[in-house]
Amino acid sequence: MKEEKAFVKEITPQSEDFSRWYIDTIRKADLMDYTPVRGCIVFKPDGFELWERIQEAMNKRFKETGHRNAYFPMLIPESFMQKEKEHVEGFNPELPWVTEAGGEPLEERLALRPTSETIIGHMYSQWIQSYRDLPVLINQWANVFRWEKRTMPFLRTSEFLWQEGHTAHATEEEAREETMRMLEIYREVVEQELAIPVWKGQKTPSERFAGAVDTYSIEAMMKDGKAVQAGTSHYLGDNFARGFEIKFLDRDNTFKYVHTTSWGSSTRLIGSMIMVHGDDRGLALPPRMAPTQVIMIPVGPMKLREKVMEAFDPLFDRIKAAGVRVRADLREETPGWKFNEWEMRGVPLRLEIGPRDVENGQVILARRDTGEKTTVALEGIVESIQSLLADIQQNMYQKAWAFREANSHLEIDTLEQLAAHISKSEQQNVPSGWVLAGWCGDDACEAKVKEETKFTSRNIPFDPPAQKQTCICCGRKAQHTVWFGRAY
Amino acid sequence: MKEEKAFVKEITPQSEDFSRWYIDTIRKADLMDYTPVRGCIVFKPDGFELWERIQEAMNKRFKETGHRNAYFPMLIPESFMQKEKEHVEGFNPELPWVTEAGGEPLEERLALRPTSETIIGHMYSQWIQSYRDLPVLINQWANVFRWEKRTMPFLRTSEFLWQEGHTAHATEEEAREETMRMLEIYREVVEQELAIPVWKGQKTPSERFAGAVDTYSIEAMMKDGKAVQAGTSHYLGDNFARGFEIKFLDRDNTFKYVHTTSWGSSTRLIGSMIMVHGDDRGLALPPRMAPTQVIMIPVGPMKLREKVMEAFDPLFDRIKAAGVRVRADLREETPGWKFNEWEMRGVPLRLEIGPRDVENGQVILARRDTGEKTTVALEGIVESIQSLLADIQQNMYQKAWAFREANSHLEIDTLEQLAAHISKSEQQNVPSGWVLAGWCGDDACEAKVKEETKFTSRNIPFDPPAQKQTCICCGRKAQHTVWFGRAY
Repeated sequence: MKEEKAFVKEITPQSEDFSRWYIDTIRKADLMDYTPVRGCIVFKPDGFELWERIQEAMNKRFKETGHRNAYFPMLIPESFMQKEKEHVEGFNPELPWVTEAGGEPLEERLALRPTSETIIGHMYSQWIQSYRDLPVLINQWANVFRWEKRTMPFLRTSEFLWQEGHTAHATEEEAREETMRMLEIYREVVEQELAIPVWKGQKTPSERFAGAVDTYSIEAMMKDGKAVQAGTSHYLGDNFARGFEIKFLDRDNTFKYVHTTSWGSSTRLIGSMIMVHGDDRGLALPPRMAPTQVIMIPVGPMKLREKVMEAFDPLFDRIKAAGVRVRADLREETPGWKFNEWEMRGVPLRLEIGPRDVENGQVILARRDTGEKTTVALEGIVESIQSLLADIQQNMYQKAWAFREANSHLEIDTLEQLAAHISKSEQQNVPSGWVLAGWCGDDACEAKVKEETKFTSRNIPFDPPAQKQTCICCGRKAQHTVWFGRAY
Repeated sequence: MKEEKAFVKEITPQSEDFSRWYIDTIRKADLMDYTPVRGCIVFKPDGFELWERIQEAMNKRFKETGHRNAYFPMLIPESFMQKEKEHVEGFNPELPWVTEAGGEPLEERLALRPTSETIIGHMYSQWIQSYRDLPVLINQWANVFRWEKRTMPFLRTSEFLWQEGHTAHATEEEAREETMRMLEIYREVVEQELAIPVWKGQKTPSERFAGAVDTYSIEAMMKDGKAVQAGTSHYLGDNFARGFEIKFLDRDNTFKYVHTTSWGSSTRLIGSMIMVHGDDRGLALPPRMAPTQVIMIPVGPMKLREKVMEAFDPLFDRIKAAGVRVRADLREETPGWKFNEWEMRGVPLRLEIGPRDVENGQVILARRDTGEKTTVALEGIVESIQSLLADIQQNMYQKAWAFREANSHLEIDTLEQLAAHISKSEQQNVPSGWVLAGWCGDDACEAKVKEETKFTSRNIPFDPPAQKQTCICCGRKAQHTVWFGRAY
């Protein structure tokens, strides 16, 4: 991800080059910028505001379920990374290291956190003594680092922003409940607020978080048919409890290891929202997430503008007072230019008002999602706007759902069929999407699917649309029904 | 700041050892913990929640004045740090460096940001072309690093949390207005929300931010008489604009350098709040900042508890519904134990209700700030609570103000008098406080005051309580009237 300076004039059509479309869109809509720091981006105000909305939606639900925020050191001593064997193997290759500070070499290297199980595990071992101290339910909003080889703005960057929850429980049962509770919160936020349908399910062992007993995810389909893991929740068993000696004296007067969980979601949700809803005109933002929900634009000849503004200003105030995020564009550009501009920026609803509208006590509302224009009476305008915004939110979810349905393939049973499907999709220049396939449970079969098709297992959905009987790779009896697809 | 494990039984009295009192209090109230990472602390949930309230109060005002949040990379290439001469000299000695990442040595070292003028300056040079692009008004919430030799929880840690505003303007006048606007916002938040009186003023050249033309600050007095710089706002002139080539084409068709500002406030505000309001019983939190504003405790014999709870629960709901941050303590401990516990945690108001209160339709409200207990009718309870909370907020500010008045010395005119004052204070075991003194403007005089007394210039207040005529050090005509004091 090098610094790219080219000014974006036109947005490349999705069908021509989806990646190009994505980069054009986020740059033209001013969501981010490249930086001279390898793989790191600037989250510009219009991009960061999407993150602030996601934070708000998550924080509300985390707090309602008894979690509290805290902040742990970003620097992790090398010895800590070593204490959980799989964890260190998983993360070591991607770590940046601080080796000097304050003018002196350090005695022990410090990693920039890729995730915080280790430092938090250490602290929990100090804080937890008795069953009375449990559960511990803490979340952290933080920057994390993974020195990735291939990067993509929002989806995979060397530094990114996320939240990571870390909880400790007296029993496996409680910890597993927590793992599922947080997965469900992710589903709720992503489906209800971001208008992105997801599949809840379990990751296969090869895709598990490094150090977890079980990893669960929500998986979303982008408009190019590729998958994004939009949130993960891990049951960590006592792996970290053993590594960091997190023990408690239980009611039965014996010392036991706690059971821990962790769960995370990140700024890649911004990228997902763009790739699920955007189109050739640019961004399309679901009303609940959009920084601006309604853009108001005066139209008609300039000599009549004064008259229009007499109605415009009080209308703006009324809409704003109702809690709608409304913005007025009073610049000198033509209405047509402004319409394109705000469509490109993904504003869900445009309100046009001209001299004749003022006379007739009406305005025009134009939807970003369908392009539909309606004439609406000024009288019930706030209610009309609120109802349209709710409808757009719903419609965007349904469109995304229909797209996912159309690109989910349930009829592919062998590797040969999958290869044929992929090559046909490529010839027709359509997404190859996801394939619901049987899997015998053997890592080798999963690896072979990946090697031959670049399709990886997304998750084993809790509630699959069908049950598959045979392994897509070896033809033996399927133990699991799995979503396979290419992934970001 | 090493990892300290001792369990805090009693809080050391302030008069015995103020630093010890501070550490005992923040540990017993569970605001933080030490970590194995040099100079880095954990912000535990009760401490972090104070930061969340400060963030909320600041964010609201930043946004109202047209600023937007963004996020820039944490890692800063070494060459960037070099571009503003004074900046690199000021910060270089305290930087931690990343020298390896992803298993390879880096070509160029990357600093963990101590502040972001350089990386942001670079980005602004890309974003700003024309006067139409100005002003740029951006704020960032972030972690920053300064590898300090001596650390103190919240007040000075190797990693801390802060916000840093960075703005660019077409003219010096506009940039200077911005510098003052943000200083005033800091004053407002710290005085109105944190109940801490501050002096607004200008820093002397030796205390300026590295790279600034002018630095302004708000300064607060702790209960040991020492000063905390509670917020700073810098007019940077075109120093960074020249270093990073941030130029724009002005209306007059010539290229000009922008004028930039930066301003910051940090988690040290948490420490200030504790050191200004706390007492020998522990924390005392101003109602607007307190995570829990009212603690409800049922009292009286256990056999009558059921009857009390019949009134307790609906009362809790009523108070909560009114938007008061209320919490109930229904644990098995004695009321006396609970009273001490919540006083130590600084909750502004305690509500006690027993069987006789239920009969009489009343409760008892006890103030943390004065210890005063009042019997209040259940009927208008919400109004009583709201009015008491407002009164406590006001009273805490006034107490802090009176303390500052009592420990501000306007009658000291020479170094000998200052030395005598300090030694007398030490003998009497009272704070030496601050001294308002004349200063000729010569750096050497300021340095001599520091060398001989450890008093440093805090700021040149805009609105000093008196005008001093002669320099405290050399006796020549004073150019400025300055607050001097020992500082954290």
